[in-house]
Amino acid sequence: MNGAESLVHSLLASGVTTCFSNPGTSEMHFVAALDRIPGMRCVLGLQENVVTGMADGYWRMTGDPACTLLHCGPGLANGLANLHNARRARSGIVNIVGDQATYHRPLDAQLTADTEGFARGVSAWVRTATDAKTVGAEAAIAAQVARTHPGQIATLILPADTAWNEGGVPAARLPDPISPQADPHAIQTVADVLRTRKNVLILLGGPALRGKAQALAHRIAAATGARILAEMSSARVERGRGRPQLERVPYPVDVAVAALADVEHLVLVNSKAPVGFFAYPGKPSLHYPPTAGVHVLTRYEQEPIAALTTLAEMLGAPEAAIPDPGPRPDIARGAPTPEGLARCVAATIPEDCIIADESVSFGRGFYAETHAAPPHDWLQITGGAIGCGLPLATGAAIGGGGRRVLSLQADGSAMYTLQALWTQAREKLPVTTVILANRKYQILLGEYQGVGANPGRTAMDMLDIGNPDLDWTKLAGGMGVEAAKAHSLEECADLMRQSFAQPGPFVVELVI
Amino acid sequence: MNGAESLVHSLLASGVTTCFSNPGTSEMHFVAALDRIPGMRCVLGLQENVVTGMADGYWRMTGDPACTLLHCGPGLANGLANLHNARRARSGIVNIVGDQATYHRPLDAQLTADTEGFARGVSAWVRTATDAKTVGAEAAIAAQVARTHPGQIATLILPADTAWNEGGVPAARLPDPISPQADPHAIQTVADVLRTRKNVLILLGGPALRGKAQALAHRIAAATGARILAEMSSARVERGRGRPQLERVPYPVDVAVAALADVEHLVLVNSKAPVGFFAYPGKPSLHYPPTAGVHVLTRYEQEPIAALTTLAEMLGAPEAAIPDPGPRPDIARGAPTPEGLARCVAATIPEDCIIADESVSFGRGFYAETHAAPPHDWLQITGGAIGCGLPLATGAAIGGGGRRVLSLQADGSAMYTLQALWTQAREKLPVTTVILANRKYQILLGEYQGVGANPGRTAMDMLDIGNPDLDWTKLAGGMGVEAAKAHSLEECADLMRQSFAQPGPFVVELVI
Repeated sequence: MNGAESLVHSLLASGVTTCFSNPGTSEMHFVAALDRIPGMRCVLGLQENVVTGMADGYWRMTGDPACTLLHCGPGLANGLANLHNARRARSGIVNIVGDQATYHRPLDAQLTADTEGFARGVSAWVRTATDAKTVGAEAAIAAQVARTHPGQIATLILPADTAWNEGGVPAARLPDPISPQADPHAIQTVADVLRTRKNVLILLGGPALRGKAQALAHRIAAATGARILAEMSSARVERGRGRPQLERVPYPVDVAVAALADVEHLVLVNSKAPVGFFAYPGKPSLHYPPTAGVHVLTRYEQEPIAALTTLAEMLGAPEAAIPDPGPRPDIARGAPTPEGLARCVAATIPEDCIIADESVSFGRGFYAETHAAPPHDWLQITGGAIGCGLPLATGAAIGGGGRRVLSLQADGSAMYTLQALWTQAREKLPVTTVILANRKYQILLGEYQGVGANPGRTAMDMLDIGNPDLDWTKLAGGMGVEAAKAHSLEECADLMRQSFAQPGPFVVELVI
Repeated sequence: MNGAESLVHSLLASGVTTCFSNPGTSEMHFVAALDRIPGMRCVLGLQENVVTGMADGYWRMTGDPACTLLHCGPGLANGLANLHNARRARSGIVNIVGDQATYHRPLDAQLTADTEGFARGVSAWVRTATDAKTVGAEAAIAAQVARTHPGQIATLILPADTAWNEGGVPAARLPDPISPQADPHAIQTVADVLRTRKNVLILLGGPALRGKAQALAHRIAAATGARILAEMSSARVERGRGRPQLERVPYPVDVAVAALADVEHLVLVNSKAPVGFFAYPGKPSLHYPPTAGVHVLTRYEQEPIAALTTLAEMLGAPEAAIPDPGPRPDIARGAPTPEGLARCVAATIPEDCIIADESVSFGRGFYAETHAAPPHDWLQITGGAIGCGLPLATGAAIGGGGRRVLSLQADGSAMYTLQALWTQAREKLPVTTVILANRKYQILLGEYQGVGANPGRTAMDMLDIGNPDLDWTKLAGGMGVEAAKAHSLEECADLMRQSFAQPGPFVVELVI
């Protein structure tokens, strides 16, 4: 058995059964091993940031790490931006990065690069294999690292000779790391705050935005009068009818500061005290009052349900019914608006839809209009590296077991990773993409005006992505995905409904 | 004057007059300064690897560094693969990477990443600005680093407050670094080798592949009976009628080893002794006989013309006429073959054409058939990170002063950075792209068979990029570039001829 075969056996034994792939020459023995050993679903992406973004989406829906198969330092580099987003989402991923043979590397051939250096900024664990005998064991460790609560990125660099040499030893799955419990003293402190103080905000993040934890937080808030918010951007929020109607911390500084102005105590549940996405001259970096007390109920690596259960019991909080969000909205009509599109989404999505949201400037108000939609999962861009949405939707579809995915996608951001549409066509995935075609970097135009100037010709050359307009029906068609344009909300709603009834991918270009 | 304004003034003073850009919020003050201060041509790319690849192509044609404008660590990360290629091409580039304000960075907002860490692997110089007062001086240093012979990558990270704070001081251009002279002892040694030994190979790389240096090498070879070869991949080779008919070191191991088997002495002129692109089990890593003597005439940082002139004089080498390459070929007809396409290129290109070559497996024989073409420049992918060709062609067109660019582009590689076509349309650039559409990762299929197996279903899922076929006329049309399919060489030649007579970009999808 060669090293590559031991690697495949070890990944499969560790429950890693999907490989998002963009291989090169140095990975051919690994590809051959994947071909010979049954059990791994291999999904090709035509650019590496598609590959890594798919792995992120897959984890968010399954809680199992996929592996990526990337080619040398530059192949990894192409996938770093979505690994950055995955790191911020705390997704578990095992990167397998093929590289030059150990003895060839010192010769500094053309493709040789600082692979470990590129990996470090996004990985909780980086290891370059040195021997075919130990590759299997290292893969098992990588999978264990990836499964460390709530999820981590492990990068195993695989020099070609550690794949092709004989002597590989398959490794068994290592135990899943146990998530540390919340500190009882911290729970007691938070209980005291909730009992005795006012203007308390409970801020939920990560796994605290799943159904059971949300329901516990709602029960605690109902009993104590505390507010609840979700973090500004989250890996996965379970939303819609039957779930608490959470809002999220707003993006614009002034709006966020106003929304949090009366907070006297912050209770963090797998979340972080809100800071600005960016700094602005003369505006605060902290979006909550600096005088507020900050209390950590659970850190990222701690599982929130036990702590919230204990807290609810300590407070004697009774069961609390989730408020009815009102009737399901009808579709909106006429010219596209954010609120109107959100109502169309609420009106049309099937039960258990997965929404991948990289709507950027157009999408900030989507939450309010979708509380009465059927239950769904909402996945957001977590690290701010645009080009996340289409790959995320694609990976979520692969991990979603047939659930329909709705990808709400700003046009500028879509262009970073449009190759994901080809994978959707190849794998016949149930993904409906709505391209929000405003033909500019709208968020930047807003920011530019914030600088205090109207953009001239040179600035517009960098902020306007019309001239020429992108034609998304052609771009999608060029990759084998059926597509149509919509100029009104009712056209968009019709196209969404039609696509939800079909098995494969579809793109709606909504001209806004 | 704020820091951003001092930065723009300093770049312009240093001869940096083109900015390839993909900006974000943290760069808005820099964008505003570019808008207010005339003199910088700003060219937008819709993905950062397009931006960095354009800067590489621009340098190769102008010898002047462009600057890039990139957004935070992940924006830089998206551009690393083509910076890797640019590093291997020894191109001069000044990266300006916007980032979080100095005081905001410790708060670890979503987009915050290890920007310096990402930059290090591709940069000769990395600096994070700390103060608006010194940004101008740092920009001047960065431009000087970029101009250090033969060219280097300098990365200046620009925290937002160092751009928006007042107190900026414009810096004057620093002197261009003087290229060190070759060691006289090295020249004497090489002269002795050429005089007294046989089976000597002169290997030219980098600036030694420009006209005058090539002619000197030809003169030396003619006088001494030495062979001349170009490196396997080079940043820019001046070729065609009137230049020596150089071949390059072959890519496949066995072919390269056979081609170099009789070499007893290697003379390196701005080149490196040939090693494999990858290692293979049981095959050598060094492609020249390990017993051969290796003699360095000029290192990368040394200018080759003076050394070659001295060497020619020492040897008393007389002027040597460049052999006539024979008549210009006619176009080839029928089913596409590499040789036939090369003949079509030789038959149709206008004088002083720039050829950007990322033809990968299809293009290895292009040199032999194009010696009799009109004089042209041939740019290659230098670092093996595919996705280089379209951006390189785009940047070369911007730096080429109206010269027609022919982009010979493998389809799989084209998909990594297809967004470059949009910039070609926006800037109305004279670029003809021939997409070599074999609809597979052909090079990998060859490598896979080298592993000793026929690919099964799982392997083909990772090596075949048909299913669905990419339609390049739609993809190009979606980005505003006119396009047509060709199924025969005569159709391809006709379309190339037509496009050469038009001012703007055109794509030919050659189905092979």
